Amino acid sequence: MQDESMFGKDYLQFRITSEFALARHIGIVVERADDAGIILSAPLLPNANYKGTAFGGSLFSVAVLTGWAWVSRYLDTSGLAADAVIQESAIRYLVPVHGTLRATLRLPNPEHIEKFRKMLQRAGRGRIRLFVDIHHGQTRATEFEGVFAAALR
Amino acid sequence: MQDESMFGKDYLQFRITSEFALARHIGIVVERADDAGIILSAPLLPNANYKGTAFGGSLFSVAVLTGWAWVSRYLDTSGLAADAVIQESAIRYLVPVHGTLRATLRLPNPEHIEKFRKMLQRAGRGRIRLFVDIHHGQTRATEFEGVFAAALR
Repeated sequence: MQDESMFGKDYLQFRITSEFALARHIGIVVERADDAGIILSAPLLPNANYKGTAFGGSLFSVAVLTGWAWVSRYLDTSGLAADAVIQESAIRYLVPVHGTLRATLRLPNPEHIEKFRKMLQRAGRGRIRLFVDIHHGQTRATEFEGVFAAALR
Repeated sequence: MQDESMFGKDYLQFRITSEFALARHIGIVVERADDAGIILSAPLLPNANYKGTAFGGSLFSVAVLTGWAWVSRYLDTSGLAADAVIQESAIRYLVPVHGTLRATLRLPNPEHIEKFRKMLQRAGRGRIRLFVDIHHGQTRATEFEGVFAAALR
């Protein structure tokens, strides 16, 4: 385990902004990045549709980056030299988002994390299913789930 | 039925670019828009990730706009004053996309279109499931399906 303080908000903000060209236009802000949670947000304006609510593609992008952020940070804090990609996902739009797009990762079950780590170390590849919620105020507005695959470099 | 020529590429390009703030940054190009098909594309560069392949959020965005484009054009060509939104969707990333992101709508079954139109006219609301494929060369790289909901204004 590396020093957790090396892998905080600045670390994830740098990785996301430098590794995804579109993240800058979406306006991704890492609000929280520690072992207890990942929260990413984006302002409404660059992500608005004609109704003044968040575009479904922007909501998806913020959610998928939140999942990617958790996996990538987990790999780095665990000293695993691996890259993560999204393999499949599903999203449900429950109510429109009229303001900031704020995505919160549901922390994975420790058993699932352990299984992911073992698969990766034994087979060089591992997969983990992650869940991300986007809230509008106190209301859950978007539910995202995605399977992320990692492969040792 | 309105004159189809009014609802070609320029019409959809204008709608997408003016109605979705992020579409300009993604670089959406309407390549085809007629009764026989909808094809949208986007260049790789603004949508690339650190591996030089298309970001999953960009692939999702191009696919969801392709579905939205079909529904919106169908509503307009049918003289139905309604707006369409994405309600839920699923996406599978089969192989990475190393070049232009090009999304093709699978034309819906005429019976499903008819059911959608009747629901909308009778109840003021209708839903239709659409399928979009993104190819890399001749290979299907991404499969998207989405349920779009329309409501009369």
